[in-house]
Amino acid sequence: MTQAKSSTPAARQIHFGATIHGPGGHHAGWRHPDAVIDASINPDFAKDVARRAEAGKFDFVFIADGLHINAKSVPHFLNRFEPLTLLSALSSVTERLGLVGTLSTSYSEPFTVARQFASLDHLSRGRAGWNVVTSPLEGSARNFSRDHHPEHAERYRIASEYLDVTKGLWDSWEEDAFVRDRESGVFFDPAKLHTLDHKGTYFSVEGPLNVGRTPQGRPILFQAGASEDGKKLAARHADAVFTHHDTLAEAQAYYADLKRQVVEGGRSEDDLRVFQGIGVILGRTAEEAEQRYQDTLKLLTVESAIDHLGRFFEHHDFSQYPLDAPFPDIGDLGSNSFKSGTDKIKAKARERGLTLRQVALEAAAPRPHFIGTPETVADELQRWFESRATDGFIVGGGTPTAFSEFVEHVVPILQRRGLYRRDYEGRTLRDHLGLPYPENRYAVAS
Amino acid sequence: MTQAKSSTPAARQIHFGATIHGPGGHHAGWRHPDAVIDASINPDFAKDVARRAEAGKFDFVFIADGLHINAKSVPHFLNRFEPLTLLSALSSVTERLGLVGTLSTSYSEPFTVARQFASLDHLSRGRAGWNVVTSPLEGSARNFSRDHHPEHAERYRIASEYLDVTKGLWDSWEEDAFVRDRESGVFFDPAKLHTLDHKGTYFSVEGPLNVGRTPQGRPILFQAGASEDGKKLAARHADAVFTHHDTLAEAQAYYADLKRQVVEGGRSEDDLRVFQGIGVILGRTAEEAEQRYQDTLKLLTVESAIDHLGRFFEHHDFSQYPLDAPFPDIGDLGSNSFKSGTDKIKAKARERGLTLRQVALEAAAPRPHFIGTPETVADELQRWFESRATDGFIVGGGTPTAFSEFVEHVVPILQRRGLYRRDYEGRTLRDHLGLPYPENRYAVAS
Repeated sequence: MTQAKSSTPAARQIHFGATIHGPGGHHAGWRHPDAVIDASINPDFAKDVARRAEAGKFDFVFIADGLHINAKSVPHFLNRFEPLTLLSALSSVTERLGLVGTLSTSYSEPFTVARQFASLDHLSRGRAGWNVVTSPLEGSARNFSRDHHPEHAERYRIASEYLDVTKGLWDSWEEDAFVRDRESGVFFDPAKLHTLDHKGTYFSVEGPLNVGRTPQGRPILFQAGASEDGKKLAARHADAVFTHHDTLAEAQAYYADLKRQVVEGGRSEDDLRVFQGIGVILGRTAEEAEQRYQDTLKLLTVESAIDHLGRFFEHHDFSQYPLDAPFPDIGDLGSNSFKSGTDKIKAKARERGLTLRQVALEAAAPRPHFIGTPETVADELQRWFESRATDGFIVGGGTPTAFSEFVEHVVPILQRRGLYRRDYEGRTLRDHLGLPYPENRYAVAS
Repeated sequence: MTQAKSSTPAARQIHFGATIHGPGGHHAGWRHPDAVIDASINPDFAKDVARRAEAGKFDFVFIADGLHINAKSVPHFLNRFEPLTLLSALSSVTERLGLVGTLSTSYSEPFTVARQFASLDHLSRGRAGWNVVTSPLEGSARNFSRDHHPEHAERYRIASEYLDVTKGLWDSWEEDAFVRDRESGVFFDPAKLHTLDHKGTYFSVEGPLNVGRTPQGRPILFQAGASEDGKKLAARHADAVFTHHDTLAEAQAYYADLKRQVVEGGRSEDDLRVFQGIGVILGRTAEEAEQRYQDTLKLLTVESAIDHLGRFFEHHDFSQYPLDAPFPDIGDLGSNSFKSGTDKIKAKARERGLTLRQVALEAAAPRPHFIGTPETVADELQRWFESRATDGFIVGGGTPTAFSEFVEHVVPILQRRGLYRRDYEGRTLRDHLGLPYPENRYAVAS
């Protein structure tokens, strides 16, 4: 079902994912009059987004995550579903939609995580994806009986070994290992069962996994770190990356660099799909869309924006600084949590001479790239896609109604332009992404 | 919705749960001509059982688990769903049915487990239950980067502290903590958010949990260990226990002892429900039922029964002993895994002078207590229930069709006798079990 197998290769197609992470827009989006006010913990809301994404033939929905909160956290992070349980529930109300969720390699066990994603892949008949993160929040350590949060480079060393282990566990059973012959009583072929016997720096895992090979061979691996360590991990292990860039030029540079690293690592550049995370606000006219954006800004208070900013800097308390003085010198703070994001905020503040107030409000409600009519938004998506800034987009609504408007009005334009599928061509997330099926490491070439 | 609130107290009612764990019957049940041969990894099979259980007004379905397999494991343990993902998927295809799954406190993190069950409780709108186990299988350590499997008593000390932590995390947010006032911008009341700051022997967990108080206050806690340590843990923490006894007298003694311990610990004896796990085989006549049982025995081979026996004894290889000599003296083996079960097997072999062949075949396919016509099985269930051997039963089918026959033919008899509900009276698993709603520890008495 993959494009590579068809006789006339299809034109390159845009890929879409959808975030389900709360009422939409920035951290005060829940105040919008149209918002589902308990969206982050409302099962009907999540199911509704998933059904709309499937109606729009999206590749997947995407669930973010975090392992530490305090009173200053983003409201919809305080009380939300755990990704694997939510995705499993969504597997029963969708048929084709991919189901991708975030899980940290810094505070979990590879045997359990390999099992849970393999189980989701079986439950969904081939639609599971894991967004591999290393946990940016230092406070996570205090929820997991640890003395300290591992530093950035070590977190990525752990993650790399962790993925070696899970990939090994997913190969425990060859595809046709389960014979299930009633007559002879042979349930499986012992030659097709493999222990892993991994003994590494961070993990010792014997195996085998108690889940058979999954419909996708193994779940799809996303990676979302944009630091150099994150890119190295992605180039080696990932099937897709989820990133954010402010400008087309930055996105193009990232795209070219990452694809180069993938090829240097011995894979094909088509073995990894790049997704830009975008916010979208639509209107019948450009003016209406802009007005809708301005209306969302009115929901913000500078106090909540200051709290929100602190989260990226290890929950630093920015309320101690004058609001209208230049952004304070906070040294290295932030470099062991959201490294690439905080570096960017600091650089922007310095270059443009911004005040703390300006930095906080921009960080709290970054202007979405994609504000306009369905036609102009479709134009812009096409431009990013065709100029190889990305292979696809993970769409977040900048207003509560933006996502359903996107499916209803933007998707058909891209379909008419031949840039986007009119229906699913395959059954699995791997099919949708056009990625090759991974051979089991033990399978003998025929 | 609980019985305690009605003006005329209802008569004591039988409770039912259903296992979903494979094709039915013993470890060779997959060979039965009516078996769904890939039942343990087939989502449609699991959904079908859940829907039938809900049609039968069952309190819950129950998913067992294990963390180590090898080539000699029970076939349907080799390749099966992970419980939390499966239960979450089932939450979307049922409305009232409780969703109970096994998870080990020896190889997991309380913050993650508290989140996943809380998330399931929200997804299902109050139907989550956790069967707390400490992992009997020594090999589990080798899948989780551990030097050794903790010994039995220590596993229960870990479990007890673990439950203190999860219960604390589930109280992080008071019930009405989320104000969500659009006008003022107040999302929650900080006075109703609580960190846990637990620092104990085995765990240090700061909190708060990033999931709000759940529809049931907290998920229902099951406990399945029958050793003295297991009973102590159940008496202190559990809402329900899942146990197995061969005779009515043994079950009555266990029931009386456990309820006594619950009362001595300061709780009411109605705060804990006892469930006996049972196998059922039905027929239109007693002869037909017996014939069906005999037919299932023919599916067994002594070789597979020997493998199966070894699993309870730390995967001991019994094939080294003569089959028809007395059961070998294996010393303490088994006492650090399935303690109560292996003690019982050894005692029975000694008392009755059984051979290895006899022990293995009995252990592989124990004779279900409940073989007969729907009327005689209903009589027997009533006798166990009314003589206070149990509060309810967790029903496993001894043949592939036994469970649906049970719902279709046995349930209506018990309903006519006034012993079992004709419809759900409440919405949550806690309602079905008739258990009190737990106050949040921080809530001020009004």
